[in-house]
Amino acid sequence: MILMSFENTAPAVPAAPVTVLGLGAMGRALAGAFLDAGHPTTVWNRSPGKGGELAGRGAVPAATPEEAVRASGLVVVCVVDDAAARAVLEPLAAALRGRVLVNLTSDTPERSRATAAWAAAHSVPYLDGSVMVPTPVVGSPDALLFHSGSREAFERHESTLRALGGRTVFIGEDPGLAALYDLALLDFFYGGMAALVHAFALVTADGVKAADIVPHLGTIVEILPPIAAHTAAAVDARSYPGGEANLAMMAAGVGHVLRAARTRGLDVGQLEAISAVVERAVARGHGGHDWSSTVEAVRDSP
Amino acid sequence: MILMSFENTAPAVPAAPVTVLGLGAMGRALAGAFLDAGHPTTVWNRSPGKGGELAGRGAVPAATPEEAVRASGLVVVCVVDDAAARAVLEPLAAALRGRVLVNLTSDTPERSRATAAWAAAHSVPYLDGSVMVPTPVVGSPDALLFHSGSREAFERHESTLRALGGRTVFIGEDPGLAALYDLALLDFFYGGMAALVHAFALVTADGVKAADIVPHLGTIVEILPPIAAHTAAAVDARSYPGGEANLAMMAAGVGHVLRAARTRGLDVGQLEAISAVVERAVARGHGGHDWSSTVEAVRDSP
Ligand SMILES: NC(=O)c1ccc[n+]([C@@H]2O[C@H](COP(=O)([O-])OP(=O)(O)OC[C@H]3O[C@@H](n4cnc5c(N)ncnc54)[C@H](OP(=O)(O)O)[C@@H]3O)[C@@H](O)[C@H]2O)c1
Ligand SMILES: NC(=O)c1ccc[n+]([C@@H]2O[C@H](COP(=O)([O-])OP(=O)(O)OC[C@H]3O[C@@H](n4cnc5c(N)ncnc54)[C@H](OP(=O)(O)O)[C@@H]3O)[C@@H](O)[C@H]2O)c1
Repeated sequence: MILMSFENTAPAVPAAPVTVLGLGAMGRALAGAFLDAGHPTTVWNRSPGKGGELAGRGAVPAATPEEAVRASGLVVVCVVDDAAARAVLEPLAAALRGRVLVNLTSDTPERSRATAAWAAAHSVPYLDGSVMVPTPVVGSPDALLFHSGSREAFERHESTLRALGGRTVFIGEDPGLAALYDLALLDFFYGGMAALVHAFALVTADGVKAADIVPHLGTIVEILPPIAAHTAAAVDARSYPGGEANLAMMAAGVGHVLRAARTRGLDVGQLEAISAVVERAVARGHGGHDWSSTVEAVRDSP
Repeated sequence: MILMSFENTAPAVPAAPVTVLGLGAMGRALAGAFLDAGHPTTVWNRSPGKGGELAGRGAVPAATPEEAVRASGLVVVCVVDDAAARAVLEPLAAALRGRVLVNLTSDTPERSRATAAWAAAHSVPYLDGSVMVPTPVVGSPDALLFHSGSREAFERHESTLRALGGRTVFIGEDPGLAALYDLALLDFFYGGMAALVHAFALVTADGVKAADIVPHLGTIVEILPPIAAHTAAAVDARSYPGGEANLAMMAAGVGHVLRAARTRGLDVGQLEAISAVVERAVARGHGGHDWSSTVEAVRDSP
């Protein structure tokens, strides 16, 4: 009875206060997810007027970035790139001292490491992170976020950071790792998106609606994960299997797409670049291997 | 009772004989799927010795292509490209007369139309098709194949052609349509695959295994179908929404991947081409729109 009563009346741990600097589309989504999880959330943005909807949901807009930082032990910054993050953070070094800074701005591993070094020089425990999903997915169980840098800072704030996404992962203590993973996934994403829009340009040039090919794209999307796993294994082993889909046949395939796009007056820069890599791999003797062998030509840039 | 007995003893319709010309990886998979569905299958390949495994499963290897053609009312050809298909088919015009020819060789819409015209000139009912899945998927319910050209030929042989894949689709009577759909899906597929291998090159340059990022790729793959539907609608409407992910932010993102790849000495042709398209779209005033607006820059090739 006493045990039951104890269990039922244990006071809820109050959710930790959080500050979000930067209220672009992603900063607003992050602040919204913290609010949804019950965290007292202070917000600031360079240009005023972007926190209105968040204030209506209970966020506290700060008059200055310094006031925003002093409101919480955990400060998240998310602006367009590292230069913008530095412009926001550098004047705040004294206020940040001893607070945990989580930088969810996307940039290169090199710049993440430099910002981590800046934070260390100012006694600011630092996590570099990246958000891998569109804003509507932020805060959901499917939202993937990478973190790297101070393991201790991650472990201390993990439950708060998990409010941003169910797939929150700490990758390692090198603060550049989250950016490396980010750029790798973006590399795949932007390559795929550019090719998708190009495919739409190709069919619409012949009077077919882009929407008409959408129902069939699922078949391609479905085969990507098993091909990715198999390709990664070959890349890691630097040993390329002879393929049921061989590179010489695929070189012909890339050539057909390129020729059709050129005939229709479309931009062919991406296709020419892919074709050049494939032809270089074939010239290196990989014509009978599968697509994974193209990594040798990517590494051997002319 | 009579009805039941009638249902149970209805003689099975014998599966129609089929001929497959070309026993590369895909030709063998096609012949294997016809055999699995019980079709008497005659096979031929330019270089001998590729039909052995199929003969063990009941296929009849023909001594000459003409003998192969004369064995069946439905003749499927699948070789590396249209030039190879023409090399096989042109000497067979007389033998093909009145039989249905299904050309599953991948090439451009222009070449498919030219081969259709050749077939028409020789009184050969013609279907141009394309196989959209890897060989192990051929013959399964998930296998997608496009057909275009003679609707009558498709309808007459639909049940036989369906042995190759559960997702067998007739797109229209323009014989170039199957190739157009094929090239659009390949455009997306090769762009994605090239970007994927590039992403693996990026992480392995920093000592991270390609296999380490594979578990996270699912998050990107999951978001592609809804983004594709939304992007297609914008492309068809030629009206580009202001984005929660705006093009100026994404231009910065592409720039980060490009810079990191260059620092690591990797080929950056594909990224430079994507970046050029995005920058051109931003210069045209689409910086506040979403990625779909890049189609204007793809159509407006410099
Ligand atoms: N949106 C997405 O779908 C998405 C997805 C994954 C990751 N991300 C990442 O999230 C980050 C933010 O993207 P976003 O979509 O929020 O971009 P956004 O909507 O374009 O907002 C940009 C933000 O950066 C601020 N900013 C730019 N330059 C600044 C400077 N010099 N000083 C101070 N603030 C500056 C802007 O402030 P002002 O309002 O004052 O201009 C604004 O808050 C980026 O690194 C992006 O790669 C975004
Ligand atoms: N493999 C796949 O995963 C896949 C997937 C979808 C679509 N496809 C399409 O299927 C078609 C065949 O691809 P594949 O993978 O089977 O290619 P492959 O394994 O490289 O086989 C090529 C075939 O073409 C024949 N060939 C080439 N030049 C010829 C010529 N001048 N005269 C006669 N025959 C010639 C070859 O005959 P020899 O044996 O005598 O050289 C062989 O039968 C291509 O259009 C491809 O785009 C393939």
